[in-house]
Amino acid sequence: MTYCIGVLLDDGLIFASDSLTNAGMDNIAKFCKMSVFERPGDRVIVLLSSGNLAGTQAVIGVLTRRCAENPAGPNLWTAHTMFDVAMLVSDAMRDIERRDAEHLHDNAIGFNASFIVGGQIAAEAPRLFRIYAEGNFIEAGFDTPYLQTGETKYGKPIIDRVITRSTPIDVAAKCVLVSFDLTMRCNLWFGMPIDLICLRSNTLEVDRRRRFDAGDDYFTALSRQWGEGTRRVFRELPELIW
Amino acid sequence: MTYCIGVLLDDGLIFASDSLTNAGMDNIAKFCKMSVFERPGDRVIVLLSSGNLAGTQAVIGVLTRRCAENPAGPNLWTAHTMFDVAMLVSDAMRDIERRDAEHLHDNAIGFNASFIVGGQIAAEAPRLFRIYAEGNFIEAGFDTPYLQTGETKYGKPIIDRVITRSTPIDVAAKCVLVSFDLTMRCNLWFGMPIDLICLRSNTLEVDRRRRFDAGDDYFTALSRQWGEGTRRVFRELPELIW
Repeated sequence: MTYCIGVLLDDGLIFASDSLTNAGMDNIAKFCKMSVFERPGDRVIVLLSSGNLAGTQAVIGVLTRRCAENPAGPNLWTAHTMFDVAMLVSDAMRDIERRDAEHLHDNAIGFNASFIVGGQIAAEAPRLFRIYAEGNFIEAGFDTPYLQTGETKYGKPIIDRVITRSTPIDVAAKCVLVSFDLTMRCNLWFGMPIDLICLRSNTLEVDRRRRFDAGDDYFTALSRQWGEGTRRVFRELPELIW
Repeated sequence: MTYCIGVLLDDGLIFASDSLTNAGMDNIAKFCKMSVFERPGDRVIVLLSSGNLAGTQAVIGVLTRRCAENPAGPNLWTAHTMFDVAMLVSDAMRDIERRDAEHLHDNAIGFNASFIVGGQIAAEAPRLFRIYAEGNFIEAGFDTPYLQTGETKYGKPIIDRVITRSTPIDVAAKCVLVSFDLTMRCNLWFGMPIDLICLRSNTLEVDRRRRFDAGDDYFTALSRQWGEGTRRVFRELPELIW
C-alpha cells in the first residue's frame, strides 16, 4: 500500500510519499517513491509513484533513458510545459503497459502504476497532475489544491479542514505530515520513512527536502501532540442531548 | 453509499447508521437502515443494513415473515443466542441471494447486502456481529470493540483514538457522532438523518434512541466545536524542523 500526496499552493508545491512496498504479507521492502528531475534555474519536476513497483520503476527508467539517449528529443529536460511532462509520463506508462500487459495478464496481475507529477518549468506557473494507470490524467485546480494516491481516506479530513491555495507552505507541509500520521495509525501496509519535499514558486529548485525515519524526533512529537490535542478537544465537546 | 457502525462496550451496545440510498446520481432517497426487534425483559436485536436496498429490505422482510408464520420455529424471537441470530440473518441473506442472483446477474448487479447485527438475549452477554454479503460473519472481540460497514475510513481514526471496551456509553456515542461528521464532510453519497441507538447491558430494552436530522442543533454544535478545536490543535503543533 502507498500514500502519496501533492499540494499546489500560491507559495509553491509540496510532495510527500511513504516508502513501503509489499508483495504479500511476507514480502515487505522499503523503496523511495519520489523521483526528482532538477536543473536549478530552469525546472524542477517531481514524480510520486504508486502501484506495482516493477511498473513504476520501469516508467522512471524509460523516462530517464529517453533523456540520455536523445537529449534533443522529447523528454523531461526538453518539455516546454508541465502538461507536456504529464504527456511524456503517460506515454512511458503506456509503452511499459504494452510491453508487460500480456505477461502480467497470464499472472492475473494487471499493470497498475500511477503517478502524481508536478513541478515548474521556466516562466510557467507551478502545476500538479495525477496520472491514472490508464495514462489519462487530471490537473489540480483552485478548488481542490491537492491530489492523493493510494490509501487516501484516513488523512483526507484534516487536509480538507486546513489546506487551501493560500495556506503558507510550511503550515501545509505540517498538515501533510499529520495526514501521514493518521494514515499510518490505521493501515499497517504503509510505513516510514516519509519523504517530504517543497518547491517554492519561481525559485526553480528544490527548496527543502526532508526524510522522516521511524522514531524521528519531530514526527514523534507531532504525532503525540496531535493525539493528545484531539482527545482534549473531544473531551470538551458538549454532552450528548438525547 | 452507507456508513454504519456498531460498538460493543462493557456498558452495552451502540448502533448508528446514515439514511441515504442512491441508485445513481439522479436517484437519491432516504431510508432508515436500522431495524429493531425488541421484547423488553427478554431481548433486543438491532440490524444495520448496507448495500442494495432491495436486497436488505428483502432480508428484513423474510426475517419478519418467519417470525409471523412459524412462531415456534427458528426465528429472531425464538433464537437462544446472538450467534443463532447471526446464523438466521445469514440464512435469510442466502435465501434471497438464491432467489435473486441469476436475475441480478443479467443486470450486471450482484447481491451485495450486508449487515451489522447485535443485541442481547436473556442472560447471554451482549454480542455484535458483522455479516458479509456472502453470509459468513465475524464477531467483535475485546481488542476491536467496533464493526463498521460502507464508507468506514474517514471516521476510523477518531474511533481508534477514543473508544475502548471500557469507554462509557455516552462518551462512545458522542465519538460515533464525530465519526459521522468526519465522513459526511468527505463523502456526499451519504447523509442525514443519522439514527443512533444505545442498549445498556442487561436492561434488555432500548435505552436511548435519537434521530439527528439535517440542521439538528446538537449535531451542528458538535461539528462546529470539533472543527474549531482540531484547527486550534493543528495551529499549536510544533513548527516543522527541516
